[in-house]
Amino acid sequence: MTFPSSLELMAVVVSAVYGVLLASRKGMDVIGVFTVAFATAFGGGTLRDLFLDRNPLFWIKNAHYPVIVFGIAILSGLIVRHIGRIRPLLPLPDALGMALFTLTGTAYAMEAGTSAFVAVILGVITGTFGGVLADLLCNQIPTLFVPSPLNATCAFAGAWVYLGMLHFAAPERYALVAGLAMIVGLRLAAIRWNWTFPAVREAKEGGSPPG
Amino acid sequence: MTFPSSLELMAVVVSAVYGVLLASRKGMDVIGVFTVAFATAFGGGTLRDLFLDRNPLFWIKNAHYPVIVFGIAILSGLIVRHIGRIRPLLPLPDALGMALFTLTGTAYAMEAGTSAFVAVILGVITGTFGGVLADLLCNQIPTLFVPSPLNATCAFAGAWVYLGMLHFAAPERYALVAGLAMIVGLRLAAIRWNWTFPAVREAKEGGSPPG
Amino acid sequence: MTFPSSLELMAVVVSAVYGVLLASRKGMDVIGVFTVAFATAFGGGTLRDLFLDRNPLFWIKNAHYPVIVFGIAILSGLIVRHIGRIRPLLPLPDALGMALFTLTGTAYAMEAGTSAFVAVILGVITGTFGGVLADLLCNQIPTLFVPSPLNATCAFAGAWVYLGMLHFAAPERYALVAGLAMIVGLRLAAIRWNWTFPAVREAKEGGSPPG
Repeated sequence: MTFPSSLELMAVVVSAVYGVLLASRKGMDVIGVFTVAFATAFGGGTLRDLFLDRNPLFWIKNAHYPVIVFGIAILSGLIVRHIGRIRPLLPLPDALGMALFTLTGTAYAMEAGTSAFVAVILGVITGTFGGVLADLLCNQIPTLFVPSPLNATCAFAGAWVYLGMLHFAAPERYALVAGLAMIVGLRLAAIRWNWTFPAVREAKEGGSPPG
Repeated sequence: MTFPSSLELMAVVVSAVYGVLLASRKGMDVIGVFTVAFATAFGGGTLRDLFLDRNPLFWIKNAHYPVIVFGIAILSGLIVRHIGRIRPLLPLPDALGMALFTLTGTAYAMEAGTSAFVAVILGVITGTFGGVLADLLCNQIPTLFVPSPLNATCAFAGAWVYLGMLHFAAPERYALVAGLAMIVGLRLAAIRWNWTFPAVREAKEGGSPPG
Repeated sequence: MTFPSSLELMAVVVSAVYGVLLASRKGMDVIGVFTVAFATAFGGGTLRDLFLDRNPLFWIKNAHYPVIVFGIAILSGLIVRHIGRIRPLLPLPDALGMALFTLTGTAYAMEAGTSAFVAVILGVITGTFGGVLADLLCNQIPTLFVPSPLNATCAFAGAWVYLGMLHFAAPERYALVAGLAMIVGLRLAAIRWNWTFPAVREAKEGGSPPG
């Protein structure tokens, strides 16, 4: 069971594009845009590699990854010129990057011999941490846990679908496609129809007491 | 000198309960509550393991820990229903979790052969980082260094008590109890009587110049 | 090619002084000041050591480093009494600490066999992360990417100067001096004349569309 490296490269690229789009809305210079793109593309995978003690880190081993992200940041001036047309598409690279990184995290954790539950959690961390970092660097409140776009929940569900299919001896590629479809579909649907989970409790002090 | 693993499990449980109580006040869904509980319970110990190069991480090795934290988060709906009665107790799991994790960090660092001063610092980091993460995830200003509840200071003092007793050949269990009592007692007293250290300087610009 | 350890100690000291000056403006107690000084002095190097899998961490191996930083924090009451005279000097330890840590990161990465581009990036991360941590702990918006004092950009340029001179077989010490001069000079000039890079796009919604 080896995770196809072309998918990891794809995760890096779409995450970097998402980071560029986010950063360029903040009036950053090109190095600032690069930094956000870098953090978005490599943040989650770096935590994954540190937690699983994988050495060297994936972006040090694949030394062309940072160069590609730098290229994307350099070209951001061009990308951003078409931002009006691009903005409605922004959730797509976000969801796709998260989905791909979630599955790398889950797959590498299983390879390292963790339990299935721990593998799913490492998947969620890998998938979501880049976006959290991007939000922090752009001085936004991280959108991870603020009600509504249930980011971590989608990653959690998709990682279980992936592991479940592998458990029933489905070929790796089908399991990957199913996991990806689950995460991206759930995420886009959650944004489109503004799905939320019920809050554990009516928050904001002064609310009425629950049930 | 081996740190009793039952104490580490206890640290995980009380920290997770603290995380759940904190998160559920923010109107998060169950996955959000789980995430905060997870970060609170495993944040400090993860830094400790990374800094000391302990592999695998303690929550990957003890694969039942994340499952227990997940169970606590699932049950949070029940816990939270009694929040009115529970809230005054909130400082207790906070202080106890911090105390237990501080001592694990100090003990594991000594095991790894660090100097006593470095061991104390690793203890403080292990004890306080989970709470900092919880605050960040809940979009609160971390309470660590804001004057008043002198969190890091209590951990610092208790870690020295623990090491001091070991230095004078006290049995491990007595040293642990003394360190725990020091941290929890100091912390609860600091909250109760609102103890603070003097600021290094009168802050808030426009204040009168110091002495 | 070995990085002179006296320069690393100097980086620790000036970064700790910068952290003390920053923290004492916030009315923190002595443990709070120590924490900020600690994070500023060791944050970047810790990430560097974790990312390059260097064990033990530099401040665990050099156990006198944390003691020195603690001493600086203890003396901060004295330092701060002269803050009026010191404040205009604040950018100097900031720039020098960043420059020194940037070059340690670049040098250690080359030692570990990374590509030049990855080494430069590790330099920038090592140089800037301590300051980001200090800002976060002091509840300031990190100044790293907010337009104007182009922190990361200076580190980036200086790391290339350093590597470029080594590439053309300049002796290590000349390469170090040139890299340091580049970073410190560029940084102080950027602050003095308020240099900025052009934003990738006019930000703040409602601005006129670019080009």
